[in-house]
Amino acid sequence: ALSVGVVAETAAGERRVALVPKLAERVIRRGLRVVVEPGAGEGAGLPDELYAAAGAELATAASPARHCDIVLTVTPPSDADIARLARGTVLIGFLDPLGAPQRIEALREAGVTAFAVESIPRISRAQAMDALSSQANVSGYRAALLAAQRAPRFFPMLTTAAGTVPPATVLVLGAGVAGLQALATAKRLGAQPTGYDVRPEVAEQVRSVGAQWLDLGIEAIGEGGYARELTDDERAEQQRRLTEAIGGFDVVITTALVPGRTAPTLVTAEAVHGMRPGSVVVDLAGATGGNCALTEAGRDVVVDGVTISSPLNLPAEMPLHASELYARNLVELLELLVDAEGRLAIDPADEIVAGACVAGLPEEVA
Amino acid sequence: ALSVGVVAETAAGERRVALVPKLAERVIRRGLRVVVEPGAGEGAGLPDELYAAAGAELATAASPARHCDIVLTVTPPSDADIARLARGTVLIGFLDPLGAPQRIEALREAGVTAFAVESIPRISRAQAMDALSSQANVSGYRAALLAAQRAPRFFPMLTTAAGTVPPATVLVLGAGVAGLQALATAKRLGAQPTGYDVRPEVAEQVRSVGAQWLDLGIEAIGEGGYARELTDDERAEQQRRLTEAIGGFDVVITTALVPGRTAPTLVTAEAVHGMRPGSVVVDLAGATGGNCALTEAGRDVVVDGVTISSPLNLPAEMPLHASELYARNLVELLELLVDAEGRLAIDPADEIVAGACVAGLPEEVA
Repeated sequence: ALSVGVVAETAAGERRVALVPKLAERVIRRGLRVVVEPGAGEGAGLPDELYAAAGAELATAASPARHCDIVLTVTPPSDADIARLARGTVLIGFLDPLGAPQRIEALREAGVTAFAVESIPRISRAQAMDALSSQANVSGYRAALLAAQRAPRFFPMLTTAAGTVPPATVLVLGAGVAGLQALATAKRLGAQPTGYDVRPEVAEQVRSVGAQWLDLGIEAIGEGGYARELTDDERAEQQRRLTEAIGGFDVVITTALVPGRTAPTLVTAEAVHGMRPGSVVVDLAGATGGNCALTEAGRDVVVDGVTISSPLNLPAEMPLHASELYARNLVELLELLVDAEGRLAIDPADEIVAGACVAGLPEEVA
Repeated sequence: ALSVGVVAETAAGERRVALVPKLAERVIRRGLRVVVEPGAGEGAGLPDELYAAAGAELATAASPARHCDIVLTVTPPSDADIARLARGTVLIGFLDPLGAPQRIEALREAGVTAFAVESIPRISRAQAMDALSSQANVSGYRAALLAAQRAPRFFPMLTTAAGTVPPATVLVLGAGVAGLQALATAKRLGAQPTGYDVRPEVAEQVRSVGAQWLDLGIEAIGEGGYARELTDDERAEQQRRLTEAIGGFDVVITTALVPGRTAPTLVTAEAVHGMRPGSVVVDLAGATGGNCALTEAGRDVVVDGVTISSPLNLPAEMPLHASELYARNLVELLELLVDAEGRLAIDPADEIVAGACVAGLPEEVA
């Protein structure tokens, strides 16, 4: 039977795993073998025994997970990881094709058929495979929690016998999946959330989670629903108006990412200086330069009493559910690549296959 | 005019301050002077300039805050602090009279008239002075946030295209102010909260914040509305039933404190072993021995995949609002001790004065 390998992630701080036991069971019921690297689930609180109980095998030196027909991963493989993949392997995971095209080239040269979850087309048939969204959901939720943790004040309004404290005001910049989840979580916690995005058509979604819409009067819609980059004039005017608005909020959470590019600066140094001491900025774009000019990637810094926090991998801080959601996404894609008899059946004519396959797409149906 | 000193807290990790600028203003309007130790508000994000703008003076070596007629503090004074108080000083703050009676004796010997906020009678006229409650509100809110932060899973139910994750189940032991706020916050975040207390009459309060009531069938009501200590038999039966129940929850938050005594053990080692990996215990009783047998005061420990967290001073992690609420409580008490002309007027016949004054109560009205 076709074998599916699950690697133990090696990136620093990565606690997720690409397949959880109950999804392994589903794959095995489909007629495939699952081979798990020992300890792969440990960071997510999933010991090897749970995989074994689900019917998975544990990888050994003689039968490494990376020699399976299909290999599942969370983070992109290193050069050393790629060298350990056999020619003809099907690799599925986050591969950062826009940020690191040289890795995709290395996979192609190694004869690997690579599916990047980032490249899955955003069509309704592929929604269940949308790992970017599932992990962004986790990031948005955790960003709001982190902001609440860093804030020296309550998020909810509190009424006591000695008086009342008002709810925290939270501004979320970028109303994609992460931004909407951050708004919804801040709202749940009792804060007064406000959302902003350069795409005015998302205003309705912002309002649907109970948040207000910040209208700065600047629009920029690009391909695939992503924000396009603004012109210089637009950006200057946007920053001027944003800078003015930001000073009125207790918390700013930024989620403005442009795939494959440096993140736009939305919170300038001047904006931070305009915030009250005790305010908090949580910047989810730290890995690509940050949405805040004063962000230091992966660190907390305090400037004029304002805490600027740059978490780099929030899904890894909630590894059980992040892994479970991710595994569901991968298994949905995996099931598209395998026929009813449990054999590889990669259809290059399928829109999802063609979109997600970033290296080694077979010419014909296997 | 009567002077009111605000000390800079010296206890490790203490970021609160006993008076915030806007309450200083209220005291000054009352005809009193406010003298603030430089940097007193810094940990709470309140620079000296804000106090100065409110009309307060900054203490100097020649005019120390501890030489004021009335001195406000958050944490109990050290021996060195007591030595710096002049005879006749009125001291107001957390003084831990039950936990450290020798400190109260030292204050009495130093000729200090000491008001412990812990000793304010729990009568309706004193509600606005109830610092235990205001700080417990902060602790309960932060305990739920901390639990959400430590959990490897979502608190809310999440529905995605690839399926649904169920809400986290949260058990809160002890339904005082902190417990109720923890339940309310867990509920806000979308978890399924359940409350338990040895006092069955609080079941209605637990339900009123949207939580379920865990009925173990054991009751123990003591003086002042606090739980009395259970008998040995009751405790054994309680632990057996609790241990069984605890294994069904993702998160357990414990808030069972008995003033002046060692905290009861409610979460045994066996109970922790019965929890699923990835579960979380947040124990608010760490300072007095902990409600969980495996708690290490002030630390996070992981046992069998269960994280046991023992935060010792949650209000200090949210210093701005914790200080603001606390300052309101102190000023309410202060205003009871001062007459319309701004002179000390301590009435030993007043129930609140008589209850709160733990040392040096004047024999007659001043």
